[in-house]
Amino acid sequence: MSPNRLEAFSDGVFAIAITLLVLDIHVPEPVPGTDLAGELGAQWPSYVAYAVSFLTIGIIWINHHAMIRRLREVDHEVLVLNLLLLLFVGVLPFTTALMAAYLKEGAGDHLAAAIYSGSFLAMSIAFAALNWRILFHKPSLMAEALPDARRRAILARGVAGLIPYLLATILAVVSAYVTLAICGAVALFYALPRASGSERKPSPA
Amino acid sequence: MSPNRLEAFSDGVFAIAITLLVLDIHVPEPVPGTDLAGELGAQWPSYVAYAVSFLTIGIIWINHHAMIRRLREVDHEVLVLNLLLLLFVGVLPFTTALMAAYLKEGAGDHLAAAIYSGSFLAMSIAFAALNWRILFHKPSLMAEALPDARRRAILARGVAGLIPYLLATILAVVSAYVTLAICGAVALFYALPRASGSERKPSPA
Amino acid sequence: MSPNRLEAFSDGVFAIAITLLVLDIHVPEPVPGTDLAGELGAQWPSYVAYAVSFLTIGIIWINHHAMIRRLREVDHEVLVLNLLLLLFVGVLPFTTALMAAYLKEGAGDHLAAAIYSGSFLAMSIAFAALNWRILFHKPSLMAEALPDARRRAILARGVAGLIPYLLATILAVVSAYVTLAICGAVALFYALPRASGSERKPSPA
Amino acid sequence: MSPNRLEAFSDGVFAIAITLLVLDIHVPEPVPGTDLAGELGAQWPSYVAYAVSFLTIGIIWINHHAMIRRLREVDHEVLVLNLLLLLFVGVLPFTTALMAAYLKEGAGDHLAAAIYSGSFLAMSIAFAALNWRILFHKPSLMAEALPDARRRAILARGVAGLIPYLLATILAVVSAYVTLAICGAVALFYALPRASGSERKPSPA
Repeated sequence: MSPNRLEAFSDGVFAIAITLLVLDIHVPEPVPGTDLAGELGAQWPSYVAYAVSFLTIGIIWINHHAMIRRLREVDHEVLVLNLLLLLFVGVLPFTTALMAAYLKEGAGDHLAAAIYSGSFLAMSIAFAALNWRILFHKPSLMAEALPDARRRAILARGVAGLIPYLLATILAVVSAYVTLAICGAVALFYALPRASGSERKPSPA
Repeated sequence: MSPNRLEAFSDGVFAIAITLLVLDIHVPEPVPGTDLAGELGAQWPSYVAYAVSFLTIGIIWINHHAMIRRLREVDHEVLVLNLLLLLFVGVLPFTTALMAAYLKEGAGDHLAAAIYSGSFLAMSIAFAALNWRILFHKPSLMAEALPDARRRAILARGVAGLIPYLLATILAVVSAYVTLAICGAVALFYALPRASGSERKPSPA
Repeated sequence: MSPNRLEAFSDGVFAIAITLLVLDIHVPEPVPGTDLAGELGAQWPSYVAYAVSFLTIGIIWINHHAMIRRLREVDHEVLVLNLLLLLFVGVLPFTTALMAAYLKEGAGDHLAAAIYSGSFLAMSIAFAALNWRILFHKPSLMAEALPDARRRAILARGVAGLIPYLLATILAVVSAYVTLAICGAVALFYALPRASGSERKPSPA
Repeated sequence: MSPNRLEAFSDGVFAIAITLLVLDIHVPEPVPGTDLAGELGAQWPSYVAYAVSFLTIGIIWINHHAMIRRLREVDHEVLVLNLLLLLFVGVLPFTTALMAAYLKEGAGDHLAAAIYSGSFLAMSIAFAALNWRILFHKPSLMAEALPDARRRAILARGVAGLIPYLLATILAVVSAYVTLAICGAVALFYALPRASGSERKPSPA
């Protein structure tokens, strides 16, 4: 299969998952006496979780393109590992809704936060695993040979990206707010101009 | 990344958001004694909001294509600003449902209307910001150099497009109907034959 | 804009609308004493409506491709008429759910059926209108000139396709079952091997 | 129509169906006294059904690409049979939710399981039927002529793939767990490295 088809299908899943996130933001029932401003304000965790997950999926999509662009063909293993990655992307609308629903609750908030950052962690591990297989075990599939140092650097950046999510998952025992803050900071870090770290272009890819 | 991939992903988000709008139109529960005609008639705000949001997203999609077509490559900043634009597009099924649910209510209608046109305003600002960065700060990414006057004209049209949404958001304090009417008029204006203003072709682009 | 982009975006909306249809098929609540077979059997209108709408959208998608394939470029009017067509396609998950919910009801069934076939009628009118504009008023956009007789034949077939839906909508006053049966027969007619009428290939297109 | 467009539309339906699966995983209501861990744990059938269906759709997508790749053009029959295949793919979010909801129930579990594997069986039959028509009755549409033995081998593999689903559907009378286990084993078998059976590449395709 050509990388183009893999990319088109994956782009579809990314685009749908990112757009389904909005289904977690609920319209308050318009019953008499509703204080709409109050109700909308009270569900601020939904807006924050929406924004963080939207940016995170968007950044994974950008990085996914950079990863697949290095291939000139894909084999069965790449297809299956990519499917595993998409499986974790597909689960994000659920974990995002879970995070939003429990952030302010007195019970379940730590668990919901751990599952939220845990789903980002699982997605990042699947991404790094796929990248590792491509970079170090599929030279015949790659569009052009990369020097060893370059391949190590790419993988190291990916693995470094796991650490904040691991931290966020562990710190869920302290506070769900800390977990959400870390996940949001990661998204902002990669989105900010100077921080296009995971696919910077100074060295040729 | 090539503009084609950016466009394909964005098209996916536009297509999904535009199609998810229908989930806000509800089938009345078929309980004995239901007056279906009455129930369906009573939810006319849902149909109007559906049509207005559908047309608006469709027009933004057309303009988005014209904007991206000017590029021969995209960089990290374009990707992230585009993601921000999509984030506001993705939120429209929620703000449309909110508008439809509260238009006829005695309370919350002004706020819902302000949020509705506010989401169009935010989307348009993100669009104009991306266009501004492309036209005035990314000459190296553009497919062909545009004369300064031409670039100013394109941006001016985009900024002019913000004004009705700003007005609609302010006038939500007067009446939610006024807000909806302005948003609908904007959609019709751009859809009508003579009014293909934002991307007319007399002058070469 | 190139026809390819128009087609890709339209394909997205067709694919999403066709796949959203399944959200109208509900899983019966697993409460003690549930007779699952009976509950699933009782919602057979949902399965029939799903199949009829799925096939109908699929056939419109096939015909849409044939229509757009004749173009080498698209203008603002084509874009907007196409958007109108998609607006009616996007509404089908709602009208399908409405039909399924009221088919067996003693009240509202006639109206629901009229709306169901009416939505197919509206979609077909939008389709025929777009085809008419392309065939008779956009010679400069067409990939190759078609003889007048050929153009008339294409349009005549499209207009002929409206008649069953018009009939089905009128006959909704008699029985919702008649309406559903006509819509189903139309879908089967176009799906059956010999009946690829709307885009047969004997004469060159 | 070119195979590319057929594939793009089909990819859209596959991608949407696979991503809609997540809507079946529910966020437990955060009411006081909720034991979130317990509630999330209790809905493990949803996670298993999500993973099994996700992998199964993913593998069908891979095989679909291999099937369509053999064509250089498609005709009306291929389009309609492909639509039938997509109709069964589109139904999977429903049958998956049904399986998840009834797996642990004392009543309805056998039926739900039979419908679950039955929907995979129907999808596989539609797939084999399409492949059979292409391989044995559409030589003029194929990109290159395949030797008879090769065509028989491809079809035999597809038909062999039906047997486990047939077995799983029959064994639903014994236990819903057996059915789910077989469906999961099939997905894993095709996903595992050595088992890329349905489209192995040793002999040229």
